[in-house]
Amino acid sequence: MNELSYRIEQDLIGPREIPVDAYFGIHTLRAAENFSISRQMVHPELIKAVAVVKQAAAETNMALGNLDPVIGNAIFQAAAEVAEGRFADQFIIDALQGGAGTSTNMNVNEVIANRAIEILGGTKGDYSLVHPLNHVNMSQSTNDVYPTALRIASIRLLTHLSQACATLQGVLQEKEAQFAGVLKVGRTEMQDAVPVTLGQEFSAWAEAIARDRWRLYKVEERLRQVNLGGTAVGTGLNAERKYIYSVIERLRSLTGLGLARNENMIDGTQNADVFVEVSGLVKACAASLAKIAGDLRLLSSGPRAGLGEIRLPDLQAGSSIMPGKVNPVIPEMITQAAYQAMAQDLAITLAVQAGQLELNAFLPLITANLLPAMETLGKAMNVMAERCIRGIEAMPEQCLAHLHNSVGMITVITPHVGYDVAAELAKTALKTGLSVRTVILQAELFTEEELDQLLRPEVVTRPGIAGKRKDKTI
Amino acid sequence: MNELSYRIEQDLIGPREIPVDAYFGIHTLRAAENFSISRQMVHPELIKAVAVVKQAAAETNMALGNLDPVIGNAIFQAAAEVAEGRFADQFIIDALQGGAGTSTNMNVNEVIANRAIEILGGTKGDYSLVHPLNHVNMSQSTNDVYPTALRIASIRLLTHLSQACATLQGVLQEKEAQFAGVLKVGRTEMQDAVPVTLGQEFSAWAEAIARDRWRLYKVEERLRQVNLGGTAVGTGLNAERKYIYSVIERLRSLTGLGLARNENMIDGTQNADVFVEVSGLVKACAASLAKIAGDLRLLSSGPRAGLGEIRLPDLQAGSSIMPGKVNPVIPEMITQAAYQAMAQDLAITLAVQAGQLELNAFLPLITANLLPAMETLGKAMNVMAERCIRGIEAMPEQCLAHLHNSVGMITVITPHVGYDVAAELAKTALKTGLSVRTVILQAELFTEEELDQLLRPEVVTRPGIAGKRKDKTI
Amino acid sequence: MNELSYRIEQDLIGPREIPVDAYFGIHTLRAAENFSISRQMVHPELIKAVAVVKQAAAETNMALGNLDPVIGNAIFQAAAEVAEGRFADQFIIDALQGGAGTSTNMNVNEVIANRAIEILGGTKGDYSLVHPLNHVNMSQSTNDVYPTALRIASIRLLTHLSQACATLQGVLQEKEAQFAGVLKVGRTEMQDAVPVTLGQEFSAWAEAIARDRWRLYKVEERLRQVNLGGTAVGTGLNAERKYIYSVIERLRSLTGLGLARNENMIDGTQNADVFVEVSGLVKACAASLAKIAGDLRLLSSGPRAGLGEIRLPDLQAGSSIMPGKVNPVIPEMITQAAYQAMAQDLAITLAVQAGQLELNAFLPLITANLLPAMETLGKAMNVMAERCIRGIEAMPEQCLAHLHNSVGMITVITPHVGYDVAAELAKTALKTGLSVRTVILQAELFTEEELDQLLRPEVVTRPGIAGKRKDKTI
Amino acid sequence: MNELSYRIEQDLIGPREIPVDAYFGIHTLRAAENFSISRQMVHPELIKAVAVVKQAAAETNMALGNLDPVIGNAIFQAAAEVAEGRFADQFIIDALQGGAGTSTNMNVNEVIANRAIEILGGTKGDYSLVHPLNHVNMSQSTNDVYPTALRIASIRLLTHLSQACATLQGVLQEKEAQFAGVLKVGRTEMQDAVPVTLGQEFSAWAEAIARDRWRLYKVEERLRQVNLGGTAVGTGLNAERKYIYSVIERLRSLTGLGLARNENMIDGTQNADVFVEVSGLVKACAASLAKIAGDLRLLSSGPRAGLGEIRLPDLQAGSSIMPGKVNPVIPEMITQAAYQAMAQDLAITLAVQAGQLELNAFLPLITANLLPAMETLGKAMNVMAERCIRGIEAMPEQCLAHLHNSVGMITVITPHVGYDVAAELAKTALKTGLSVRTVILQAELFTEEELDQLLRPEVVTRPGIAGKRKDKTI
Repeated sequence: MNELSYRIEQDLIGPREIPVDAYFGIHTLRAAENFSISRQMVHPELIKAVAVVKQAAAETNMALGNLDPVIGNAIFQAAAEVAEGRFADQFIIDALQGGAGTSTNMNVNEVIANRAIEILGGTKGDYSLVHPLNHVNMSQSTNDVYPTALRIASIRLLTHLSQACATLQGVLQEKEAQFAGVLKVGRTEMQDAVPVTLGQEFSAWAEAIARDRWRLYKVEERLRQVNLGGTAVGTGLNAERKYIYSVIERLRSLTGLGLARNENMIDGTQNADVFVEVSGLVKACAASLAKIAGDLRLLSSGPRAGLGEIRLPDLQAGSSIMPGKVNPVIPEMITQAAYQAMAQDLAITLAVQAGQLELNAFLPLITANLLPAMETLGKAMNVMAERCIRGIEAMPEQCLAHLHNSVGMITVITPHVGYDVAAELAKTALKTGLSVRTVILQAELFTEEELDQLLRPEVVTRPGIAGKRKDKTI
Repeated sequence: MNELSYRIEQDLIGPREIPVDAYFGIHTLRAAENFSISRQMVHPELIKAVAVVKQAAAETNMALGNLDPVIGNAIFQAAAEVAEGRFADQFIIDALQGGAGTSTNMNVNEVIANRAIEILGGTKGDYSLVHPLNHVNMSQSTNDVYPTALRIASIRLLTHLSQACATLQGVLQEKEAQFAGVLKVGRTEMQDAVPVTLGQEFSAWAEAIARDRWRLYKVEERLRQVNLGGTAVGTGLNAERKYIYSVIERLRSLTGLGLARNENMIDGTQNADVFVEVSGLVKACAASLAKIAGDLRLLSSGPRAGLGEIRLPDLQAGSSIMPGKVNPVIPEMITQAAYQAMAQDLAITLAVQAGQLELNAFLPLITANLLPAMETLGKAMNVMAERCIRGIEAMPEQCLAHLHNSVGMITVITPHVGYDVAAELAKTALKTGLSVRTVILQAELFTEEELDQLLRPEVVTRPGIAGKRKDKTI
Repeated sequence: MNELSYRIEQDLIGPREIPVDAYFGIHTLRAAENFSISRQMVHPELIKAVAVVKQAAAETNMALGNLDPVIGNAIFQAAAEVAEGRFADQFIIDALQGGAGTSTNMNVNEVIANRAIEILGGTKGDYSLVHPLNHVNMSQSTNDVYPTALRIASIRLLTHLSQACATLQGVLQEKEAQFAGVLKVGRTEMQDAVPVTLGQEFSAWAEAIARDRWRLYKVEERLRQVNLGGTAVGTGLNAERKYIYSVIERLRSLTGLGLARNENMIDGTQNADVFVEVSGLVKACAASLAKIAGDLRLLSSGPRAGLGEIRLPDLQAGSSIMPGKVNPVIPEMITQAAYQAMAQDLAITLAVQAGQLELNAFLPLITANLLPAMETLGKAMNVMAERCIRGIEAMPEQCLAHLHNSVGMITVITPHVGYDVAAELAKTALKTGLSVRTVILQAELFTEEELDQLLRPEVVTRPGIAGKRKDKTI
Repeated sequence: MNELSYRIEQDLIGPREIPVDAYFGIHTLRAAENFSISRQMVHPELIKAVAVVKQAAAETNMALGNLDPVIGNAIFQAAAEVAEGRFADQFIIDALQGGAGTSTNMNVNEVIANRAIEILGGTKGDYSLVHPLNHVNMSQSTNDVYPTALRIASIRLLTHLSQACATLQGVLQEKEAQFAGVLKVGRTEMQDAVPVTLGQEFSAWAEAIARDRWRLYKVEERLRQVNLGGTAVGTGLNAERKYIYSVIERLRSLTGLGLARNENMIDGTQNADVFVEVSGLVKACAASLAKIAGDLRLLSSGPRAGLGEIRLPDLQAGSSIMPGKVNPVIPEMITQAAYQAMAQDLAITLAVQAGQLELNAFLPLITANLLPAMETLGKAMNVMAERCIRGIEAMPEQCLAHLHNSVGMITVITPHVGYDVAAELAKTALKTGLSVRTVILQAELFTEEELDQLLRPEVVTRPGIAGKRKDKTI
């Protein structure tokens, strides 16, 4: 690379070579060097959301006559491009950056400025045309831009997550219907209990995910209050009143989201509790998923020496050493995504509680955990729905064999034969190793037909005493 | 103690001496011995809630003609007494018990049975009169009683917690009004920033607590769906339909809470995600409190070598070695209560995600963490309101001195003098060590009176450019 | 109660009635009132450890001629009594107290002072005889007493925990030997894999606990460096050099522990990272226990519709609705104790990281989590060893049936028959539903005797190819 | 792209197009599609470590005559290239993959196979030359390869982390020496306490980091026991004894690490507790760093309206709205890296405790958290040392002003003037607002010279009573 490959930019610390093609500038490069510690960059959804804030600010500043329309329109266009995900490789600052997000704001400012300069026919780095601070950042402070953008990005990924819940719920409910007639033994504390249907098990999972969907859908409204216009500490010092009232209007229009001005911008600037609230619900979803994934691993265990009541679709070869082994890889992925989200919830909580006075300096940590948690969990649920749940097959003979062999049978006939007879049958089964069904039949208390009647799924897995109306007395 | 001090009870494992005066029985004693590991017993609010479930069941069983009214009424009375907190010393089982709460259910059954026997004039242990299982536990299973009771106890403590938020919010708002005129420097990232009022700082705290109050108030409705009537796995096997529909009606009436039947009792029996949801919001409240407590410790630091902008009330002597030292003991208590609640949230999450198939065996762990978290945080907030916030005094001179000395002053005058002049003034202040106010006055850019006008709290801490309308040009 | 029931004590805040019989005084009562938020009092092991520090200080102060022997000896005796656990009901301050432990130190000072006064024939509250601060607390500060005591209490409970590991390891190893010949199928990702013995499964658990034992044993030495003598901030201001060097000598002698002076007492006063270190290892032990408890629940699942490869001892009746149901209550207790310890580790981490400058104000939170975590986990392991592991029975027929039915069999014969034949056999078994053993025999590849030879536990569960030396060719 | 751009590979599920240039194969692609949920790929250090295991296996298999040297040498060379970090873009599988790492193992197998084929002059995908399973994976199972590789990668990053501690400790100690004479007030519970030197504050931080360094250095030996040779469940089934004993020897030689065979490979295959142990110590380091970073933010707060006792180096411009504002961006980065590591510790703990029977399926989650935690914290410490600590300047006048103004002064003279006089002076200072030093001088208890003598850093911040030997009586 020859010497023409660089341009020189300057800040308080001194001059610095910047790659001549770079849209980012000196503030970005300093920050990229200062914070290069994790391999994780700032989440692209945040970048997009900062850019849309820049669009709204540029529009407002033009409308108020504070920003030359030539400059303003170039900024608006450049920001719109960034908001669509372009120039993604220009956002080079570590996700765990210090400075409360200032560096990310500067990175966006610089990329937009240089792109706007380019649009206006200038040379990158010639900030006399479009200035990252004076023009792109006009009327803004990182302290109002960043929390606003984080809320926008969170709403977007939350919507994605909530839709993934809907997808998963739908597929679970399809299987609920499909398996409504598959009778099996229920298990409490991993011990044989009374009958349920496989459909009911899917219904319980669907119900949990339905709750998650609802929670995540509802909590979106908690994210809508933004502090844009509050400038440095929320007082709005040195920002015009008209600007404040107008910019959120435009932001609402640009995003299509129901954003509103936080009435107390001092609060909105320093308090980040809403992210603990949202993350707590993401974690609730994660807990549900971990529970379901654990159940799937249990029910599909085997195939021969486990419960083996369902079979998960084969997605990829399992062991090289054991031919034919297929592992529950999607439930395992889900468990890990869930655990990761639980850990990310902790990081978010730590960040929020550590806020000091007029600002929370740890918003970047919140971003680095909340956005991935929502995105990953959402994607994981979509994969789970399509590549795992949809293809699950029931193993009805195995289900029935387990039931017939278990104490669950005893409980069903207890109201008909009395506790003492039932207990005697249980003992006999244990002693002989015979299945409980066999023992009952051998005792000639019921015919096979009668037993089958008692065990009809629609009867035995609903409230009431199975077969009572037949007034069977033994 | 002579041999008459014991009665003999029997279970599957064999006979066992029980203290003759004990209301608990053999199942309780076995469990107390099996699980004696923590020093923590089952939370009394759970015991009370289980007892009120027993009241509802007894009423319903009598109404359906399944329970002899003589026995049923004695049970009802005994259960009512337990529900009021009597016989607290008879609940002797470790909070971390195994068995999904069965032992706690049995403990309540036995205490109620023996108390009912006593009411009926019998001798404790004579279960032919009132039987813990056949009578007190009639139509119930631990698996529907326990989750139902945990929801009732949670609602009660949640209400207490939400009221404590209201109290704290109220006192914070009183101080907000009181300190509306105390101008001070705002701080972002612990660095001097632009002016705020001390009242605004209290308003931001009040706002956070108001959000907590609202969240905790709203989430109560998520706890209302109970699975009573679902028996072992939620199918309601061996329970009458009439019972199921009636018992929750009575429970609603006895508790005064808006309880409703979970439409999917299979779900209600196995899924405990609602406790992660509730705990997540308790944790959000904890995070707000930790943030506020940290701020209080910062602002009251000193008294001479710290920020010293507020003074907390003296509650107790501080150091023995340093005369006159008074420590921020209530904020420190709050921080610890908040951290404890965050840790308890983790325990709850761990318990919930580990549920397996038709039951969550770890409900006792949820109880042992969620109820104390809500109770402790609620009490801590009440203490904070009354013993700390209410007595806080502002140190307005110190507040003003900090402001006059800081870069915040520069920011206020920047729109009037331009960025370059402002930066020059800042440099001079740093070089000379003079206060920024002094430097401004020495530069004869403003008179003292003009500066005071610019710095009127009602102007400088609201949106817009302070003093703009006066069209000051320098 | 008449007016004589109270004595009057006085502090900076004013006079206060104290129950006339109380050994605690006004500082204790104020603190008890200020911090009444959790139901948890200060852990008794901490109280005992503070008292032994008081013994050492009294001895040293007497030896240096700073403390009248009459007073000093009374203090020593009183402190010795507290160190043995007497007067436990006099320690009435909440575990989550603010003030960095000052209130606990004062509580101990007051109880010792009043007990010493009593020993000297005086009236409680007559501090002219023995003064809580001037005499009992002589040469000390909470800031050196409390961390020192917390380390002593931690060492003692750590030793208890490490011994519990040894006990559990021993019992696991007994079962390892007992079940060395019980051949069964191994499971990876809950899917049937290759053969292991039940004894090997116990050996893996024993190995994990052996590691925990070693870690917990070793980390004790990290707790030995105490900051006693550092007074307020670790500089030792206003404490005599001779005192500092002597008091730890006496403390070592009184406790029998290998305590040593922290060379950098500034560090020892403010940094609490050692408690994160210790707690991290307690958590590692908890993770091992949770894993083992989960395995026990899996292997004992059934008895008829689960894996059913082991049977846990019956400890208490299970379900009332399902006769004969016995639940894995001890493993469930273990899981909960483990999860609680994980949560407590979080509380400890939060407390430690929040230390500020010369002190960590949150030592009480560390105490309130670390000591119970170690105590509860230790007790839980002892219970586990005696009430669960020791009584476990193998179900060898079930183990063998699972193995014969599984793909594990295929893997064993693969080196003898080749991958293609093996895969064919696997397919046949799946298609016909016959056990894998049956399919192999039907294919007449091996006689029953040959198969049994191949499957000898001592061969098939050790490195190498089972039966290779027999040069079987098929 | 034309049809020649793809080659066809086949697995149990069917045929699949693979980009013709790809080194990875069908198993990798399937997994990449199944698990595409996070934006995080498998950590490169793990890939490198798997590759070095492949080198050792190839060498051993050749030595035992099981692997054709032509194939084996090509594999060895290809694996060596991967172990050096080449082909990084061929590792395309999500970090949160299910399958216990099988897919990562397959990815490495396929890349090595295709690279070896290339070396041998063949066409990628022609596995008749070098087969990913039969040749590259010979004698191995994911279940022994993956845990072994994870331990190797962990040791390497642990070493890096421990060295970063050493670097940071060194720089802290340089500043300790530099600031040994800067006297200042100590603060406990954020309240003014007795004198310390700024050097002592750095020494306490250095001491904590020194402990971290030692812990992290020592724990490396716990990672050395590897289970390579254990194959599927640790029994070593179908692996030759000679192979098992030889392969670790070669691995030790290739890595230069002190690896050893785990005597109990059943244990080594299923138990992952060592990663909780290691992570717990990483977390202890994180807690120390969070504490230090918090202190740095406190001490550098201001510059005018905060403590302002130190000045951090300027690294980048702060606020756009407030000229001259410089924020403590490196301490903020550190805090976030520390919080992230604490969260990652939770993910690791969750993964470890969830292991089931013969395997822990969640090793990929451990990898995805432990390796980044160590790497990020290590880099963060290096940045902290070089870009923050090294450039810190003391503000000795501010330090002294705080001390002279504080109660710390009173404590110093208390032994000379008595508690009552001292308390009187304290009151006067508070009432008049005068500095404590001024009040003392006005009372004519000491001359300025005498006070300066009393306050010599080497006297007043060491054990004993300052100035005692001068026998001053007032």
